[in-house]
Amino acid sequence: MTTDEQFETGRKTLKAQPFSQLIGAELTAFDYGHVTLVIPIRDALLQQNGFVHGGVLSYAADNALTFVGGSVLGPNVLTSEYKINYLKPSIGDRLIARGSVLHVGKRQAVCRCDVYAISEGKAETLCAAAQGTIVTFEPTSSQRS
Amino acid sequence: MTTDEQFETGRKTLKAQPFSQLIGAELTAFDYGHVTLVIPIRDALLQQNGFVHGGVLSYAADNALTFVGGSVLGPNVLTSEYKINYLKPSIGDRLIARGSVLHVGKRQAVCRCDVYAISEGKAETLCAAAQGTIVTFEPTSSQRS
Amino acid sequence: MTTDEQFETGRKTLKAQPFSQLIGAELTAFDYGHVTLVIPIRDALLQQNGFVHGGVLSYAADNALTFVGGSVLGPNVLTSEYKINYLKPSIGDRLIARGSVLHVGKRQAVCRCDVYAISEGKAETLCAAAQGTIVTFEPTSSQRS
Amino acid sequence: MTTDEQFETGRKTLKAQPFSQLIGAELTAFDYGHVTLVIPIRDALLQQNGFVHGGVLSYAADNALTFVGGSVLGPNVLTSEYKINYLKPSIGDRLIARGSVLHVGKRQAVCRCDVYAISEGKAETLCAAAQGTIVTFEPTSSQRS
Repeated sequence: MTTDEQFETGRKTLKAQPFSQLIGAELTAFDYGHVTLVIPIRDALLQQNGFVHGGVLSYAADNALTFVGGSVLGPNVLTSEYKINYLKPSIGDRLIARGSVLHVGKRQAVCRCDVYAISEGKAETLCAAAQGTIVTFEPTSSQRS
Repeated sequence: MTTDEQFETGRKTLKAQPFSQLIGAELTAFDYGHVTLVIPIRDALLQQNGFVHGGVLSYAADNALTFVGGSVLGPNVLTSEYKINYLKPSIGDRLIARGSVLHVGKRQAVCRCDVYAISEGKAETLCAAAQGTIVTFEPTSSQRS
Repeated sequence: MTTDEQFETGRKTLKAQPFSQLIGAELTAFDYGHVTLVIPIRDALLQQNGFVHGGVLSYAADNALTFVGGSVLGPNVLTSEYKINYLKPSIGDRLIARGSVLHVGKRQAVCRCDVYAISEGKAETLCAAAQGTIVTFEPTSSQRS
Repeated sequence: MTTDEQFETGRKTLKAQPFSQLIGAELTAFDYGHVTLVIPIRDALLQQNGFVHGGVLSYAADNALTFVGGSVLGPNVLTSEYKINYLKPSIGDRLIARGSVLHVGKRQAVCRCDVYAISEGKAETLCAAAQGTIVTFEPTSSQRS
């Protein structure tokens, strides 16, 4: 596949996830070992104090990790585990989740993801940092492990 | 506060989170050190293979951890960090996230959360397991740390 | 293998780890899904304030996780990843690390470990809690993944 | 304090940890937000297959995280929690653990640590990656939280 075809495949996968549509996530970069997800911030994604809910940051990290793992392992991947540290309250126009790969093996990749919040014309703020394991699965299997 | 008042306060907090309303989460138990969140499974919460999206499981774990931390530390708490392992694909009628407390200090609690999927009349399946840190914050502060 | 033979195999594996000998770890229970490691506390295992060094607690958690994973997956296993929360300073006569299994798949097990400190005749104190993934490897392979 | 004085203080702290002496760790860099620990690999640090024991990698990550947290928060710090992914078997002459800081707050810092193995004249191999939280404590307190 060419880079453009890969990107198109990634976008189709994201569109095929009803929950990603509910969140409103968009794939804006999908290269070997580097992936960017963008989530426009809207009221429905907030918690009680007006910040983006941690669950949205977790979704962003989880999905960017899965996609960046898929960029090096192929399409049949899922996130096995990850940890996330919340660093700052998230406010602004949109979230940007950047996934990268630390190590690729035959059946798994260990990846990191940093999640930023940004307002128009302002600098990005690092809001959360994650690290996790993405594993391949057999497409006919109905089990995670 | 009585137990009933605590439970009512917990439910109000959950209702005040727009993202929890988008997800459709309900608080069904809120005792000192033990909290249960229930999420009815519907199409909008799935990924491309028909399972509940990992981001929903992460939301459930994150929020159950925050609430169970709040049950022992008071209302001004947030999740500082957690890790989650996905164990099985989640299918069924609803998710049940049970949070419990391992250790309470002055300013933080370390908690665990197990997330189950269940179909009417069937046994629960453990789908994800999480562990994390909940910290207190000053209500006037606009910063997480 | 009988339970006694399994226990003997576990003890031999621990004895074959030079670092476990340096630490002074002993395997005191090795059942399917439940393992106990004991580490007598001595001056060489402390940090600058007289508590057991976090690295010793991490070793205990890491190794109990590997062994309990091995109790359900077989001898060719290694810890892929884990997270640990330190809960209380560790003082006393010995550390007790108890590993248990949350979920077993074909190629991996997700496990938890709680590490306690104890002094003669006193109650145990929970000092650290861990959760991680143990994976099988091909015995002829020289690579972790 | 000058940079040289800070480095000297860091080295003294490491020397005051009996377990770090048992491991044989050396502090080779201690700057604001960046710390390097080196551990010469010797037989006593191995597991049964001739690789460095995971517990040594965990010690290296844990301690580099604590020290790099201390480089930005001051000397009264401890590691609250961390997660580690093991990436490759560790063989060679020495381990190099490099800690860096993602975010500093008033009472905590979130940090990462990458652990490499190296043989004389060869390229470094990334063997483990960690992320965790370092917190300040009151020097008179005898409790972690």
